[in-house]
Amino acid sequence: MPDDGPDAVTSTDRRLVLATRNAHKVVELAEILADVLAQVRLELVGMDVFPEVADVVEDGASFAANALLKARAVAAATGLPALADDSGLSVDILGGSPGIFSARWSGRADLTGTAKDRANLDLLLAQLADVRDEHRGAGFVCAAALVLPDGTARVREGHFRGTLTRSPRGDNGFGYDPILLVEGDTRTSAELSPAEKNAISHRGKAFRALAGDLRELLGP
Amino acid sequence: MPDDGPDAVTSTDRRLVLATRNAHKVVELAEILADVLAQVRLELVGMDVFPEVADVVEDGASFAANALLKARAVAAATGLPALADDSGLSVDILGGSPGIFSARWSGRADLTGTAKDRANLDLLLAQLADVRDEHRGAGFVCAAALVLPDGTARVREGHFRGTLTRSPRGDNGFGYDPILLVEGDTRTSAELSPAEKNAISHRGKAFRALAGDLRELLGP
Repeated sequence: MPDDGPDAVTSTDRRLVLATRNAHKVVELAEILADVLAQVRLELVGMDVFPEVADVVEDGASFAANALLKARAVAAATGLPALADDSGLSVDILGGSPGIFSARWSGRADLTGTAKDRANLDLLLAQLADVRDEHRGAGFVCAAALVLPDGTARVREGHFRGTLTRSPRGDNGFGYDPILLVEGDTRTSAELSPAEKNAISHRGKAFRALAGDLRELLGP
Repeated sequence: MPDDGPDAVTSTDRRLVLATRNAHKVVELAEILADVLAQVRLELVGMDVFPEVADVVEDGASFAANALLKARAVAAATGLPALADDSGLSVDILGGSPGIFSARWSGRADLTGTAKDRANLDLLLAQLADVRDEHRGAGFVCAAALVLPDGTARVREGHFRGTLTRSPRGDNGFGYDPILLVEGDTRTSAELSPAEKNAISHRGKAFRALAGDLRELLGP
């Protein structure tokens, strides 16, 4: 009979932790990664399972750096393989900004939720008021990271391109969805159904790109 | 005796027009370019001399594009060689933003002067509140353009590097001067004397770089 030491415990714990306290994000990612999770026999859980682990300060200089920061902290704190992502809007004429500052673009620390989202996109539209249509290219970017307890790390990016509108349109999604006119479509990202958006979103692309790394590093 | 046609009139009009209605900027640039203006026997004038010429919309995608837009418009409208410049603050971790949007960063079209400057820099500091010191590199950038009535164009850039502070300091200058800690100094750009700043400023560097083009294209 094998020794029931820490190694054995770790190897039989088939949980993969997503660095989020948002249960909705766990469900959404479990759907995106359903095939590979079944193959490698892993169960995706969120950080609600580990209430004692503190959130990490996301002070990296890129989406990839922030995703790795979060995944490393969770892998170290839980002893389990960890996934994390960081995403935002990259505007061409702004050299990629708001980028990693997308969620705090308006500087309004007093706002939350949809009021904060609205302040962020209103500011962006005001800043770009004089920018002609041909210079309004933009895209959502997501960096998804996988970190194992031994420090092995992989990071992949997904992109979702479009053009900035001049006013918000649509009620689905969140953040800057209402002002990104989807490339090859007449609708904004907030006018797509959730299923349409999942199929082509930056987050879906980044995590699907990471599926190969999950198979390679955690497969049977 | 030569024919007194349009060509002869143009060649004896030794004025060089700076695309600004700010008399202070004309005086400042006349000092920076004193030597070359004497050499090529040109008198620098501002757009206050041409009140009938409308301002151009600065909708280029870079400092250089905007400087060229302004200089081309003035050269075309006046039939004289024209100088123009566009400048702003380029923050490394923002991919060069605020950049050409420096003057309207806060989106507050209702503000002017120092109140607008303050709103712009307050927003920038709030956006970058979590950014560590080693990622706070930034610099002022100026593009200076020379355009002749025949369309010949030259553009040069000047840079003034530093690091962003966490709160404004100093009363000189304008714009983002109070939050740029000068490289190799312990003072912000707003704590330099006007003479110190002129000697090392991005605007001075860009126009001094353009002096060679003035000599080459307009010299005797």
